[in-house]
Amino acid sequence: MKIDGRHYRTIFPAPDGGGICVIDQTRLPFAFETKVLASEAEAAVAIRTMIVRGAPLIGATAAYGLALAMREDPSDRNLDGARSRLAATRPTAINLRWALDRVAGVLQPLSAKEREAAAFAEAARIADEDVASCRAIGEHGAALIAEIARRKAGPVNVLTHCNAGWLATVDWGTALAPIYVAHDAGLAVHVWVDETRPRNQGAALTAFELNAHGVPHTVIADNAGGHLMQHGQVDLCIVGSDRTTSTGDVCNKIGTYLKALAARDCGVPFYAALPFSTIDWTLTDGVAGIPIEERDAREVTHLTGRTDEGAFATVAVVSPGSPVANPAFDVTPARLVTGIITERGVAEATPEGLLGLYPERRVAA
Amino acid sequence: MKIDGRHYRTIFPAPDGGGICVIDQTRLPFAFETKVLASEAEAAVAIRTMIVRGAPLIGATAAYGLALAMREDPSDRNLDGARSRLAATRPTAINLRWALDRVAGVLQPLSAKEREAAAFAEAARIADEDVASCRAIGEHGAALIAEIARRKAGPVNVLTHCNAGWLATVDWGTALAPIYVAHDAGLAVHVWVDETRPRNQGAALTAFELNAHGVPHTVIADNAGGHLMQHGQVDLCIVGSDRTTSTGDVCNKIGTYLKALAARDCGVPFYAALPFSTIDWTLTDGVAGIPIEERDAREVTHLTGRTDEGAFATVAVVSPGSPVANPAFDVTPARLVTGIITERGVAEATPEGLLGLYPERRVAA
Repeated sequence: MKIDGRHYRTIFPAPDGGGICVIDQTRLPFAFETKVLASEAEAAVAIRTMIVRGAPLIGATAAYGLALAMREDPSDRNLDGARSRLAATRPTAINLRWALDRVAGVLQPLSAKEREAAAFAEAARIADEDVASCRAIGEHGAALIAEIARRKAGPVNVLTHCNAGWLATVDWGTALAPIYVAHDAGLAVHVWVDETRPRNQGAALTAFELNAHGVPHTVIADNAGGHLMQHGQVDLCIVGSDRTTSTGDVCNKIGTYLKALAARDCGVPFYAALPFSTIDWTLTDGVAGIPIEERDAREVTHLTGRTDEGAFATVAVVSPGSPVANPAFDVTPARLVTGIITERGVAEATPEGLLGLYPERRVAA
Repeated sequence: MKIDGRHYRTIFPAPDGGGICVIDQTRLPFAFETKVLASEAEAAVAIRTMIVRGAPLIGATAAYGLALAMREDPSDRNLDGARSRLAATRPTAINLRWALDRVAGVLQPLSAKEREAAAFAEAARIADEDVASCRAIGEHGAALIAEIARRKAGPVNVLTHCNAGWLATVDWGTALAPIYVAHDAGLAVHVWVDETRPRNQGAALTAFELNAHGVPHTVIADNAGGHLMQHGQVDLCIVGSDRTTSTGDVCNKIGTYLKALAARDCGVPFYAALPFSTIDWTLTDGVAGIPIEERDAREVTHLTGRTDEGAFATVAVVSPGSPVANPAFDVTPARLVTGIITERGVAEATPEGLLGLYPERRVAA
């Protein structure tokens, strides 16, 4: 999507062929800087230190990291070594492992001297496929926005939680893709952006990317969404997902469930937008079956931001000595989900709905 | 309640008779300091700058402020002047005006030289009555906690939102009073403390006062409560209220409605604790009838806290240039409220339930 009128992807080969360019997301929202990853080691650091984040983008970065490793040393030994080193950068990221397996699978049968070019080509294909998949999610979701636009005057108000935008993917995003497609098609869309405590990805990243692309939006405390829905100020909720069960239970950033409850109470449609790779076909009960990561208390007790003087500072905001709990995700039961938007279309959040989009899974089951 | 084992009220006459002592709440949670208000002007500053906050405490402070004014100049002219000056410190605080009217009503018939002593005595009565009212709320609410304790092993887990603790009143608090009474009676209670963005009164004040009194508690992001309820980790919700309708709709800090929805979805009882003065007998529809204050965007965009070096810093956390909305309260419809705890007992959140506790209102209606 666009920043200052110029189109970017979150990851792309450097024009001079010297490496891979990424947006340094640790500097957002206060500075926009790209960074060149010139080696496998630099790609690993970028993933580990969250210069890049978001499952699809991490996958693409790891794929390019393996390509950079092949440029340095295309031997079998280095292929295996680079693959494990990159896999260890974010141990729980499923997409990362998937991308590494895919590139390694292409490279293994090849001779050493063919590997560099093949690896860069496969990484580029992974990136392009992610863009196409997100764009398709955007088109299917934009149809829902267009349908609401036909029924009402004024902009369609969409509430979203966390960052499932283009910064988390290679381009377009998942939950934000329908918004970008609708906006680019000339529909009036306005986005309520949950700040998304404790890591504030909404306030920092979603707000940044919507602002940079020119999409009207308003940042709110996570507490505010229910009140807005009660007063008719939200037409539609769209969130992303980290894992969705075959029955349509949606695991997403902590707090998503509360918004789904408010949407149900206020008659607001609630959708999750996600690529097929997010669906865990082995799970039928998300609340019971999806383990929820408990993260560092310091994410709740401390906040980092920019002072009025332009320096960065980290401050404590919780009473010293008080214990803290920090569950990172929650599960929204399928009964609260109006539909699932994927690259193949919009399905009911039911086993039949999802199998309708992915009939090949019916055969496999 | 206690701080470091010593009992405090939030407001009390200085032992040397030189003024009124208050806890400087702008210094919490990082420093505990009392401050002497020696004049009407200092009382006014304390209210205006939120050295004291919470409707009942503001009322008591204004009453003592009028007493300090009578010490300075007990003339009719100064009585009227001080009353308007103090009333103007927080224009929307209903309790403040109620306390000033009450003290002025006592003083007006008296001669100038009787006024100082009468004003201090009336202010002390207002403070004592608030303590008694909160203590009664505590006893009625503690019975609910005791009932749950009888049915389960381990501590009773209570979730609360914002700060409706003793720091907002003269002692005991409203939502926290049942917790203090239960804890002091030896019941095992553990409190989930919503941080309560954007002003963080939970993380700063509720956590501080529970910690200081020795009540087990855990601070969580506002997003986490639904997940905890889904997993059986909350036995009871108790919140305060800024205004409750005659039908039981509860207006409270923004985000309360989301917790009430989760409580209903998960079968967790949800109570509001409040004194009679909070009930607005003229209103029957809270969502339609209670105007919601929109507060400064800077409360959302900036946070103040303590750096690791011990200095205070204010940092921006929202992407620059993004618009912000900041509704301060929301309304939880009575259908989601299990009961209202008042100084007279526990009522259903219905017109009949509330009139059952306040039959004199039935006559008046």
